[in-house]
Amino acid sequence: MVAWKNLDTLESYKALQDTKGNVNLTEAMAGQNGADRVKKYAIPMAEGLSYHYAAKKVDDDILEKLASLAKEAQLSEKFQELYNGAVINLTENRRVLHQLTRGQLGGKVMADGVDKREFYKKEQEKIAAFAKKVHAGEITNEKGEKFHTVVQIGIGGSDLGPRAIYLALENWAIANDTLKMQARFISNVDPDDPVGVLGGVDLAHALFIVVSKSGTTLETLTNEAFVKNALADAGLDASKHMLAVTSETSPMAHNSGYLAAFFMDDYIGGRYSTSSAVGNAILALAFGPDIFARFLEGMAAEDKLAAEEDPLKNPEMLDALISVYERNILGYPVTALLPYSQALSRFPAHLQQASMESNGKSVNRFGEPMNYSTGEVLFGEPGTNGQHSFYQLLHQGTDIVPLQFIGFRKSQNEKDVAVEGSTSQMKLCANVAAQMIAFACGKDDENPAKRFSGDRPSSIIIGEQLTPESCGALLAHYENKFMFQGFLWNVNSFDQEGVQLGKVLAKRVLAHDTDGALKAFAELLGI
Amino acid sequence: MVAWKNLDTLESYKALQDTKGNVNLTEAMAGQNGADRVKKYAIPMAEGLSYHYAAKKVDDDILEKLASLAKEAQLSEKFQELYNGAVINLTENRRVLHQLTRGQLGGKVMADGVDKREFYKKEQEKIAAFAKKVHAGEITNEKGEKFHTVVQIGIGGSDLGPRAIYLALENWAIANDTLKMQARFISNVDPDDPVGVLGGVDLAHALFIVVSKSGTTLETLTNEAFVKNALADAGLDASKHMLAVTSETSPMAHNSGYLAAFFMDDYIGGRYSTSSAVGNAILALAFGPDIFARFLEGMAAEDKLAAEEDPLKNPEMLDALISVYERNILGYPVTALLPYSQALSRFPAHLQQASMESNGKSVNRFGEPMNYSTGEVLFGEPGTNGQHSFYQLLHQGTDIVPLQFIGFRKSQNEKDVAVEGSTSQMKLCANVAAQMIAFACGKDDENPAKRFSGDRPSSIIIGEQLTPESCGALLAHYENKFMFQGFLWNVNSFDQEGVQLGKVLAKRVLAHDTDGALKAFAELLGI
Repeated sequence: MVAWKNLDTLESYKALQDTKGNVNLTEAMAGQNGADRVKKYAIPMAEGLSYHYAAKKVDDDILEKLASLAKEAQLSEKFQELYNGAVINLTENRRVLHQLTRGQLGGKVMADGVDKREFYKKEQEKIAAFAKKVHAGEITNEKGEKFHTVVQIGIGGSDLGPRAIYLALENWAIANDTLKMQARFISNVDPDDPVGVLGGVDLAHALFIVVSKSGTTLETLTNEAFVKNALADAGLDASKHMLAVTSETSPMAHNSGYLAAFFMDDYIGGRYSTSSAVGNAILALAFGPDIFARFLEGMAAEDKLAAEEDPLKNPEMLDALISVYERNILGYPVTALLPYSQALSRFPAHLQQASMESNGKSVNRFGEPMNYSTGEVLFGEPGTNGQHSFYQLLHQGTDIVPLQFIGFRKSQNEKDVAVEGSTSQMKLCANVAAQMIAFACGKDDENPAKRFSGDRPSSIIIGEQLTPESCGALLAHYENKFMFQGFLWNVNSFDQEGVQLGKVLAKRVLAHDTDGALKAFAELLGI
Repeated sequence: MVAWKNLDTLESYKALQDTKGNVNLTEAMAGQNGADRVKKYAIPMAEGLSYHYAAKKVDDDILEKLASLAKEAQLSEKFQELYNGAVINLTENRRVLHQLTRGQLGGKVMADGVDKREFYKKEQEKIAAFAKKVHAGEITNEKGEKFHTVVQIGIGGSDLGPRAIYLALENWAIANDTLKMQARFISNVDPDDPVGVLGGVDLAHALFIVVSKSGTTLETLTNEAFVKNALADAGLDASKHMLAVTSETSPMAHNSGYLAAFFMDDYIGGRYSTSSAVGNAILALAFGPDIFARFLEGMAAEDKLAAEEDPLKNPEMLDALISVYERNILGYPVTALLPYSQALSRFPAHLQQASMESNGKSVNRFGEPMNYSTGEVLFGEPGTNGQHSFYQLLHQGTDIVPLQFIGFRKSQNEKDVAVEGSTSQMKLCANVAAQMIAFACGKDDENPAKRFSGDRPSSIIIGEQLTPESCGALLAHYENKFMFQGFLWNVNSFDQEGVQLGKVLAKRVLAHDTDGALKAFAELLGI
């Protein structure tokens, strides 16, 4: 049995307290020593990726202590419990099974009387068969014409992950001639969102996927109604244009209003649902089921690495350990995620949810308050864009923000241009390498405004190219990282009680059941 | 003469130290007192907007002390100096004149032998005349056909602001039948960025605006070359498709490679250039010059309010004072910007730059280190999307993140749908009101995982509708807020020395002039 203990009760955590200040990156990363660190402090990942932590404020001694922490916190055993189907999500009394959508790390997991791996596989097969019929023109609109656009209607986990991955692979799919349908996304209850998206969609040739696990998400049902009105106005039969992704017990299941329904379940949280039917339906329709299967292969391969016991061979675990070291020993409250890949433009927004919703908790998994900080603020934008924006603060601001870079040696497309003796891709890669050294080593100058203190930590994941496989591995890396962070902080990373109060109060506003400041604000907003 | 002093040398700042903990929002915002605060703690803004700070951790006493701080820090006098043309940007020995692009708050400002207000107006007139000719089909492509798309090639300030404002007004323009041309944006040196954008653009009918003040921004010149190649491949004459926005002394000025050139100058920083030719050219082409003029009117109207001496009548100044109170007295390092408007989807990214690049500085305007924190991390996404994402941490995380909401009573489009007795717009507004109270008042619960501590501060800007005028006022609000923050922190908000080191090192990588860790990282990235 594993023991769930608060971080600050662990001996190995206490041993880390004394290491603060042991590594100054301006020294550690200088000269041959720096080159040696780059060589040594790296872990291979799946699908040609690798994780590099040379520019983090660690040394052999700290790494050894972090490995002790991993052991004492039983990170590996906890992950084993999770993938073998234990009820890890205590508050909601649920298993946590998103890994099963892409592989089987442990034993067979039975729940609700079914083999859950088989259940998820069956939904994948249903979706694949459906998508192939759509692509082949066997499932068509009322006039027998092929659909060419697919629109996801969902919010939060039903939006951010699938959207980020669609954008990550859209241009790859075009370059590889496998973009079957264009995908669009409607999420916000702001009516300007559906108006804007529908303005660019040819309704007669569009499929809409309504995604809500409970079948009761108010924003999503509202946008579904919005779209149904638009279809009716265009003289189209909504039931020929709409799919459902939901749980089998929801009002959206077994409902003749939908052309088809694909199922998820309560064992997969929204923010971990990209590999479930939530991401599967739209991505298989957009790219083809084979591409989605390759994406899942990448996830499964990285999941396997996450099951490795030694953190120095487990990039997810080490990334989590270092981030907790930065959060709790070094005291940095924010992390920036900076992919040097325009295709990953919305990847930070998805990981922002996955991280902050998972670990932004003030009580431990047993409901007890803790004496240490948990989940960090995560934000980011693609480089090189960010360099011309908020990097000023990252380099010279009064607070230190640890950085997570991502870079690929090749672009998704072969097209490039040479200016001043280098291609765009070379410039992109040169910039991310340069930034890591600029942050770590800094630079003195007689003009204090031009001084860079350095000693600002960063890591990087490097890959050959952003493909379905490497994209899957990348996503699995972060999903597992956030899980390990949650294990270390001893929080339940799989509930989200903090989103409830706002919903309750919003309903009261709409029912005009308010007083005091809430009524006053509502009136100012015209309600 | 104004005196530029460090924040912690001001008596009124010292007086604020004792007020920490004086206001607990769970009490202050409860019952009739809360309603009274909502009524009292509000300032009218321009163009129907208003700023509400009832849910901030302030009371009459703190507000009085903040007013003293404003006076002692000479915020009004400093702003006067700025708009009258003083060399506020000391490091670069430059005036700071972006306000002149939309009005004349003070006296005539002469620089380089010209009246700068007249100079900016002349460029506006040049752009308006050009745009009208394009819209009228008097300026056409090689075949005499009308242009219908305009693509901005720029990065940082030449991208984020114009892009955010285009997205903010695109659907408004469609609803009001004034979208003249679709706009697109290429920014990243990642070749997948131009490939992706150009894939959706009909080159033969597209105008490209190359935006670089110096005419030497490597990312922008590279993307320009990329586009020129694409035009050549399509058998098109680049000089018939390309415009320049640059300074008069740059290699891009007076260059026959461009159909026309419009000018900016060194007195307008990139992040403050949306109201200059940088934003003007693309927005006037997209929406028509009259719409851009209305946007500038909104900015000018808000600038006027920013010149008001009493912070209780000056929303920009008070917003800045409260944020510095939160940063330096209450110790919050991050602020979230949460517009309840899908149209403002990229507004946080622009303000992230404007804020973090302006005030992320570790030395004061004279190059001396300070003993207090400066610029905060700013991030955000539109509500209600964020509610289903990172709000968990905002409500229940271990750190407090002050919030800035934005909401409008009406959507940009009349289209809406009623579900469960309320429209989408009503739901949107109900949610933002509910969130403010949820954050301020919290909620107790016998289950600790369902407890909300409350006492989490937020403010809101409320408007009737997001129009060109209110959009302009909103942008000017934040530009002026960041300026006042910089005055309080005594930093130079108008330079960005922190972006230089990365550029220098990237050049060395491309020249293979590296060793040590930089060489090792570069090799890992294939260079």
